[in-house]
Amino acid sequence: MRINHQRLWDRLMAMAEIGGTAKGGVCRVALTEEDKAGRDCFIRWCEAAGCIVEIDQIGNIFARRAGLDSSLPPVLVGSHLDSQPTGGKYDGAYGVLAALEVIETLNDHHILTRHPIELVSWTNEEGARFTPAMIASGVFAGAFSLEYAYSRVDKEGRLLGEELERIGYKGSLPVGNRPYSATLELHIEQGPILEMENKSVGIVTGVQGIRWYDLVLTGKETHAGPSPMRYRVDPVKAAVPVLNQLYALAEQYGEQARITIGYLDASPGVKNTVPGTLTISVDLRHPDDAVLSAMDAAFKGIVAAESLQSKVDFDLREIWYSPPVAFAPRCIQAVRNALKILDVPSMEMVSGAGHDSVYISRVAPTAMIFIPCKDGLSHNELESVEQQDATNGANVLLHAVLELAGGPAI
Amino acid sequence: MRINHQRLWDRLMAMAEIGGTAKGGVCRVALTEEDKAGRDCFIRWCEAAGCIVEIDQIGNIFARRAGLDSSLPPVLVGSHLDSQPTGGKYDGAYGVLAALEVIETLNDHHILTRHPIELVSWTNEEGARFTPAMIASGVFAGAFSLEYAYSRVDKEGRLLGEELERIGYKGSLPVGNRPYSATLELHIEQGPILEMENKSVGIVTGVQGIRWYDLVLTGKETHAGPSPMRYRVDPVKAAVPVLNQLYALAEQYGEQARITIGYLDASPGVKNTVPGTLTISVDLRHPDDAVLSAMDAAFKGIVAAESLQSKVDFDLREIWYSPPVAFAPRCIQAVRNALKILDVPSMEMVSGAGHDSVYISRVAPTAMIFIPCKDGLSHNELESVEQQDATNGANVLLHAVLELAGGPAI
Repeated sequence: MRINHQRLWDRLMAMAEIGGTAKGGVCRVALTEEDKAGRDCFIRWCEAAGCIVEIDQIGNIFARRAGLDSSLPPVLVGSHLDSQPTGGKYDGAYGVLAALEVIETLNDHHILTRHPIELVSWTNEEGARFTPAMIASGVFAGAFSLEYAYSRVDKEGRLLGEELERIGYKGSLPVGNRPYSATLELHIEQGPILEMENKSVGIVTGVQGIRWYDLVLTGKETHAGPSPMRYRVDPVKAAVPVLNQLYALAEQYGEQARITIGYLDASPGVKNTVPGTLTISVDLRHPDDAVLSAMDAAFKGIVAAESLQSKVDFDLREIWYSPPVAFAPRCIQAVRNALKILDVPSMEMVSGAGHDSVYISRVAPTAMIFIPCKDGLSHNELESVEQQDATNGANVLLHAVLELAGGPAI
Repeated sequence: MRINHQRLWDRLMAMAEIGGTAKGGVCRVALTEEDKAGRDCFIRWCEAAGCIVEIDQIGNIFARRAGLDSSLPPVLVGSHLDSQPTGGKYDGAYGVLAALEVIETLNDHHILTRHPIELVSWTNEEGARFTPAMIASGVFAGAFSLEYAYSRVDKEGRLLGEELERIGYKGSLPVGNRPYSATLELHIEQGPILEMENKSVGIVTGVQGIRWYDLVLTGKETHAGPSPMRYRVDPVKAAVPVLNQLYALAEQYGEQARITIGYLDASPGVKNTVPGTLTISVDLRHPDDAVLSAMDAAFKGIVAAESLQSKVDFDLREIWYSPPVAFAPRCIQAVRNALKILDVPSMEMVSGAGHDSVYISRVAPTAMIFIPCKDGLSHNELESVEQQDATNGANVLLHAVLELAGGPAI
């Protein structure tokens, strides 16, 4: 049994039209009109495939296909439909639409599994508009309260809870406390490893730990011309040795360490004024929690040391910590077994990116499946995948779901 | 003869109410409603003092007090009324209102000078909204065309020419071609030197040269997690050694060299995305053109060397160059002579900041007078001056104007 690759591809392209950008990317940021349109479209397809759709109080969409034994906990498959502001066509949407394609394929073959199967699209996975990322799967898994999620604010000062209501996706279903026998998420790798290793599918055995910080440096705002350099209290100048040592840390902690400065803002941001404040974001990742803790300590040590010898005030705020995750052996084995059936080049790997599956793995047995994306490029309008890899990933998902859902019951 | 220090101070405080901020600063950015209100207020005061007011096509305000011989070219005194977004009460406004106080004092004493005296307030001196700075005195002196000035665009995409019209300050008087026998500008120092040297007045003999650049680094936007560090093309990481060497340059070129990074922007500016581009502004200053040229060459050399060993694309754009200026000996001497009459502690110095007088000195004999500001702080809401220094500066201006305008004619 194989999925219908053309139907999957056509839906990927149709979804990419919603919020589609001139450069071929997608801007379907969480709780915008585009996000609403993407959700509406997905729900139409789910209902046409015979699923029962429910929305929970944080806007997560669940679409259920009955099993032979409705008393058994379902197998959950899906990902997210929101995107980065300059995101690609596949990040999230591929996992959601491939899960739908699994249902369609089971329908085509008149197969009823023992366990029910549920599709899911999680709210605000990207964290581009409302931080933290993966907030809705986080609430689902008990990592955040619903009130905390509702109170998140975007750059324009709008509340997540109000935006959810505005687009009509504040559902009535309580968040969480839904038992699942297993969950699987199919996603693009968002990195270069599978492509470099010439593999079509990755068996994801766990996820890197992530630590987020905001570093706010406060100096003295003053005119660029008359102030001699030695009297300045310049936060940008003070940041340079911190950045320098930070990037050096990545080398020190080896191949698996990641350090990203994604956001910088100098205020007031005028050419002829020494800035009063500089804010930078810092994102540290490592798959080994002990190493990530060492990186965290080393970073704090750098900031403390620079702070001591500078008149600039250093305020290091810890925004988020997501510990490394090891996925469930039974779910990983189901993916391995599917790959034996399909004879597709594959490898085992750890995810470098965070995913909703990180939270979901706290409350249900979970694994992930990756396919390569071109040049490892993601969070980018030029993100692209080979159609054959998209097909292979969806077929692996199909057979892994079949095993976890108790195979063809009829 | 002395100015009325209370009248001057009251007007400074009244003007500071217009666009006044909670922190005691001023936000009277060029061609905003606040700028319009400041202009309207100034014109009312000028007319009440008996001056004839004219507006030129770039919004510069001229207020003329007749002389005994109207065929003689006037002496021009003034500065600017626009401010930085988080500016202080004195930058610009002090020079304009002290010039008005000179007129008021001459009126009080029924003194008619041989030459007419003109007050001026120049449009968009700060360059905070529309770059380049000092654009209107630049058009006046022939450094820019009027069309170029009109076509300048702010961050919201609004045109300078349209904003000028919107606030009702696109006048009919042609810009420039107005002969002046001498011009003087009184200003706060915007640096710490006078305060450190315990002087109340600075005799400004010239102005530092300034070079502005935008450095745009373009890398590859990608997800923060999965991309190994060695495959990244990260513009922020590439900028660090450039910034490091830039700040080192300032030390290499000595006490008078100034280097400022006032603006930084990483795009898309999201915590979990390696930025695709980083834009930084660079402001280099030195009073000696040969040294400034050496700094310019050294900076370009740094960028070229880093560019060679990086996959990031470095695009260095030269935005503006203002050569160092030596003021007119006759005007400088008039300031020195005024100081002999007044017995106020003073010193000769070079301005570190650009001023409208830089352009005006191209078309008329010019000098400047400085007073200290607290902690050298300027372009800052906490900018402040001692009332006694404000009085001393205005008295120096009064006596220097008297000498240049041909003394009491009646």
